[in-house]
Amino acid sequence: MNINDNYLNLGDSYLFIQIDQKVSEYKAIFPNREIIKLGIGDVTLPLVPAVVEAMNRAVFEMGDANTFRGYRSDQGYEFLRQAICSYYNSKGVVLSQTEIFIGDGAKSDLGNILDIFGIDNTVLIPDPVYPVYVDTNIMAGRNIVYMDGNAENGFLPLPDSSIRADIIYLCSPNNPTGAVYNQEQLQIWVDYALRNDAVILFDSAYEIFVQDDNLPTSIYQISGAGECAIEFCSFSKMAGFTGTRCGYTVVPHALVRSGISLHNLWLRRQTTKFNGVPYIVQRGAEAALTNEGLEQNKRNIDYYLHNAKIIADTLAELGIWFAGGVNSPYIWLKCPNGMLSWDFFDFMLENVNVVGTPGVGFGKNGEGFFRLTAFGNRENTMEAMKRFKNIGRVTKKKSCNFLT
Amino acid sequence: MNINDNYLNLGDSYLFIQIDQKVSEYKAIFPNREIIKLGIGDVTLPLVPAVVEAMNRAVFEMGDANTFRGYRSDQGYEFLRQAICSYYNSKGVVLSQTEIFIGDGAKSDLGNILDIFGIDNTVLIPDPVYPVYVDTNIMAGRNIVYMDGNAENGFLPLPDSSIRADIIYLCSPNNPTGAVYNQEQLQIWVDYALRNDAVILFDSAYEIFVQDDNLPTSIYQISGAGECAIEFCSFSKMAGFTGTRCGYTVVPHALVRSGISLHNLWLRRQTTKFNGVPYIVQRGAEAALTNEGLEQNKRNIDYYLHNAKIIADTLAELGIWFAGGVNSPYIWLKCPNGMLSWDFFDFMLENVNVVGTPGVGFGKNGEGFFRLTAFGNRENTMEAMKRFKNIGRVTKKKSCNFLT
Repeated sequence: MNINDNYLNLGDSYLFIQIDQKVSEYKAIFPNREIIKLGIGDVTLPLVPAVVEAMNRAVFEMGDANTFRGYRSDQGYEFLRQAICSYYNSKGVVLSQTEIFIGDGAKSDLGNILDIFGIDNTVLIPDPVYPVYVDTNIMAGRNIVYMDGNAENGFLPLPDSSIRADIIYLCSPNNPTGAVYNQEQLQIWVDYALRNDAVILFDSAYEIFVQDDNLPTSIYQISGAGECAIEFCSFSKMAGFTGTRCGYTVVPHALVRSGISLHNLWLRRQTTKFNGVPYIVQRGAEAALTNEGLEQNKRNIDYYLHNAKIIADTLAELGIWFAGGVNSPYIWLKCPNGMLSWDFFDFMLENVNVVGTPGVGFGKNGEGFFRLTAFGNRENTMEAMKRFKNIGRVTKKKSCNFLT
Repeated sequence: MNINDNYLNLGDSYLFIQIDQKVSEYKAIFPNREIIKLGIGDVTLPLVPAVVEAMNRAVFEMGDANTFRGYRSDQGYEFLRQAICSYYNSKGVVLSQTEIFIGDGAKSDLGNILDIFGIDNTVLIPDPVYPVYVDTNIMAGRNIVYMDGNAENGFLPLPDSSIRADIIYLCSPNNPTGAVYNQEQLQIWVDYALRNDAVILFDSAYEIFVQDDNLPTSIYQISGAGECAIEFCSFSKMAGFTGTRCGYTVVPHALVRSGISLHNLWLRRQTTKFNGVPYIVQRGAEAALTNEGLEQNKRNIDYYLHNAKIIADTLAELGIWFAGGVNSPYIWLKCPNGMLSWDFFDFMLENVNVVGTPGVGFGKNGEGFFRLTAFGNRENTMEAMKRFKNIGRVTKKKSCNFLT
């Protein structure tokens, strides 16, 4: 019996464990200090009434012999796929409902999609990045080439024509940096993919945060993307489904490689290794896409975006460089005075009692950066920024010159 | 860009599509004949009140800021893992809750578990069998060796000591044959696995149907299994969750190969490629394991088992060989008069207006056999068997000598 040796090449996933550990240690010493967590990428507002009502109805349907539902299409109920098509229509994208696969979240599908690709493909991944892109490819033993995100390119790397990639990961709005590609930049990526016979795996999990009408929210708003891109999206952020679990993956019929339809390969993968998303949850997701659901969720998104603005305004006032903060729930800041990510983490924990995420946890280019999120509540976010400003002033007065 | 070429080696999954097609064609010619479907492996009774109430409560919790839940452990909530431990305790099996992984169903986990094994393992799979075992290994490019199930061994193959297997699939009570391994037979398998350093993937999705106290319902009731077996189970049949989606996989801490804990590998796989099961669904599953939930679901299981008995009694009366029918919702019968599976399918559809599943759809050894299921309603099951007996008598009278 041989195990999959590729697993031995994985780094330990210590980031959030290490954060928790440091916070616990600090709390043990200073039990009375109120620590504010702005590190987590999880929503905090409850499900909206339209979704609760729809799921409640669905639960009762499942308890009634006349309306009970057992196994159904592994690809998802047509009512939900149709609702997603309408959502895309409102963005000016025309999809067939057969191109949409309902899944239990973007994380699962982003990992599982790799089943349909050969091992001997070169994978192009931005750094810093959501760690799942890297780890799932290490598990499969694929060759990974990194592209550098940095302050100079606004953490929005563009293709290097000297590199020949087969699979390309793009995430926009980006996790962790909050940076958003514009139309022209994504067109450059699509053209590069088409030239290289490559496939773009486009993670649009944060698309709902884009407020600027000129910024794309789907790769299919880019000409030619239907022939080279798979899009992953989710109800996690759009409708607060992080604990309710529903996402979707779009694999266009026009996406063909070596004469084989990638749509058909993914369909075969899903019908063999997946059995669909709970009926109850699919009814909840459908409700999130009604006018009522979209409106109610918009209020939640606006709430988070206002938190982001409070953080961004504070950083601007303090003269700290950052990406994100608009069109994104993430604020990616350059640690002041050239501090390293973990040093700044310690500084914030000890002096401001605020927890963020060290940028180096997302890749080597994240060193010296730090992620704050807008998912906290308003009061805590304001209090955290007030403390941050105060410590800035205090340290200045004390000539520590911490904040420049 | 290269696709995963192994997919090209998959057979088309035509079985249920072909069945639907034949039924549609027949209906088009004889629109007034009432066709009874005893082919499907899906439950039909609604969720029990205890589960409905628990999920309803959970939906409201998700709509309230004070009780809302976002991301949580990918391995599942402790309340559910603890409930599963207690369920195993009642079978005389002691597990730690950390050995239990909550997933969205046995089908997903049975496919995904293969991620942690090397490609160069030899896989031993019974024939006939649930097609997912075969297809998921073809997708990965593994070498498959089949073991023959047949009327002589009661469709319960035992190890051939001349074969060296690394990964062994066992399903008991079996889908499609309804056959159940006894204690001694499973001990032979565990001993074989330990001798060969192999791992048994034990599918116990139908364990709830076992009524005979002498028959094992978990591989961990067998001495030594904790060092060589992973068990997959599900709420699909036990609690009617086929459309609600919840299952669990047990990977014991004692399961170590090449010095590596398979438990840790699976934990790494799940935390990287999965984000857990909906909170609402986990609360429903927990409710199914309370005394109240177990009692309510037992009534449903008894209902299905009584259907199985009606079918089994009819076959016995007609002198037709069959496996299953007790301790299982499946009845696996030998087609009378040496008919082939599809010929018997046509005969049943045309003369009895009953739809079953041709055994050959589950592997070459299924040729000449036919699967009926107990998941229909009582009235239809009785009516189907009445028709079957009548046609038997009619054909005898007409000297067609169809039923021997």
